Amino acid sequence: MQIRKRVKSYKSAREFWLSDQDKNQALSLRYTGNLLFEKNSRFQNIKVIDTYAYGKSLIIDNMIMCTEKDEKHYHEMISHPAILAHGKIKNVLVIGGGDGATVREVLKHENIKKVILVEIDENVVEASKLHLPSLSCSFNHPKLELVIEDGVKYIKNITTESYDLIIVDSYDPVGPAKRLFSVDFLRHCRQALTSNGLLVTQGESPFFGQTTFVSLSKCLKKIFGEKKVKTLLFHIPTYPTGVWCFYVASKGKINPAKVNSKKIALFEQNNELDYYNHEVHKAAFALPNYMKKLLDE
Amino acid sequence: MQIRKRVKSYKSAREFWLSDQDKNQALSLRYTGNLLFEKNSRFQNIKVIDTYAYGKSLIIDNMIMCTEKDEKHYHEMISHPAILAHGKIKNVLVIGGGDGATVREVLKHENIKKVILVEIDENVVEASKLHLPSLSCSFNHPKLELVIEDGVKYIKNITTESYDLIIVDSYDPVGPAKRLFSVDFLRHCRQALTSNGLLVTQGESPFFGQTTFVSLSKCLKKIFGEKKVKTLLFHIPTYPTGVWCFYVASKGKINPAKVNSKKIALFEQNNELDYYNHEVHKAAFALPNYMKKLLDE
Repeated sequence: MQIRKRVKSYKSAREFWLSDQDKNQALSLRYTGNLLFEKNSRFQNIKVIDTYAYGKSLIIDNMIMCTEKDEKHYHEMISHPAILAHGKIKNVLVIGGGDGATVREVLKHENIKKVILVEIDENVVEASKLHLPSLSCSFNHPKLELVIEDGVKYIKNITTESYDLIIVDSYDPVGPAKRLFSVDFLRHCRQALTSNGLLVTQGESPFFGQTTFVSLSKCLKKIFGEKKVKTLLFHIPTYPTGVWCFYVASKGKINPAKVNSKKIALFEQNNELDYYNHEVHKAAFALPNYMKKLLDE
Repeated sequence: MQIRKRVKSYKSAREFWLSDQDKNQALSLRYTGNLLFEKNSRFQNIKVIDTYAYGKSLIIDNMIMCTEKDEKHYHEMISHPAILAHGKIKNVLVIGGGDGATVREVLKHENIKKVILVEIDENVVEASKLHLPSLSCSFNHPKLELVIEDGVKYIKNITTESYDLIIVDSYDPVGPAKRLFSVDFLRHCRQALTSNGLLVTQGESPFFGQTTFVSLSKCLKKIFGEKKVKTLLFHIPTYPTGVWCFYVASKGKINPAKVNSKKIALFEQNNELDYYNHEVHKAAFALPNYMKKLLDE
């Protein structure tokens, strides 16, 4: 009996933490210890864990991709500001985002006719379908086409101005995602946009991945023009440092910071949104001074 | 020789991390391992460490109070929005904030005549004076009076409407700071405000200290009125979850979200600010939907 008791207390005392970190700072989430999913694909290690504070979480190569509790911060902000600022988006291309939550948000806009999701790793889709139903709920939507292919190759094969919106839903520039931050890839994105089209890319954090945060902005400004790239800020507690950004680059005349509040209000009425609203839209483009300085704005 | 080498490599391989955490999430900063300051005062354990990513940092009872690199996010946002929205502030009372950085910001406003800083623990002032000169640089300012006393007692002894602005610069509601979140204390703060005065209090994070985030808002609304309490958001990478808030409660008719942009622009011209500007002022009061829901707004 004595031994059994000891074993039991040892088990319950064990704690499992997942840390997303660089060499000087770390964000850690406690989880149950069970891996709901784990696979080493051709490209990366994919896990689904169950955290105590944020629900189930998709982890790729030890980086927190999303958690059930706060993923909407990211997925609403990567899609709605650009779509509502443009107002006439029909064709959308999403590169990355195999968990399905970005297309779930995009498909809330009824004027959109067709969405193509290009994900390099089918195992990400599989993990999400199996364990993250609230993210992967739109994979059977009639307007969606899922293509399992390298996004870099896919974009190079587009020869016409085909998309009103391209969303690059990538993670940090490591592994297969690295080439989604290259000049060559981003140039091809611009070419594939219609004349008034918008490109939204994941832009890292000014404190975590600062080099990419700065260099991606510079790169986009070279390709689209100095005044054609806006930084969209949001907060997300399960990404290291909690502050994160998307860049919105405009091929034509659309300024993504300017919107018709009434149009957004109507969209808000018809959809249950966790993060985004018309005040948040405008606020997201207000940059603190330190950030303007970093971005030379 | 062999042994010596081994010892050396062991030493250099050791890593020191400071973790600010609750039971399910943690923010960790790597530091040199040297404690620049450590004292167990009557109230709390006070340390100054040297982090790799954020410079020197003041730590109280293992909670990160501030770091040299991002303290201005906090200290500019706890002071400038309220001061510039009011426009006619003469007398200011700061409770807590013994590191000196809040009064450093407050004293940038030339129309202010007198600032009283009431800090319970003189050892916090000492630590900051010794190791954080960029925070403690205003302790000799002629308009400043430093009082080492319990803020709760201090406010109870104020019998007239004396202050245009009261700032409660506290940390999490544990230890001596706990009573700075009580109904009784906050009622006394309201009484000590002039008829158009403003109270700014540290309001925790919607994801870290959520109970306090919600209950403090409710408490302030009861005391000041449902429409008289605004939530001011900002981001700070060295506080767990990265998103943090202040509450601004208004005794009279001033709405702290409304400001004269020209006035702010003039203030910006005359002061080098790291975070705050007129766009950030307005953006700070835009709340995401999940937060409105939490706060019943």
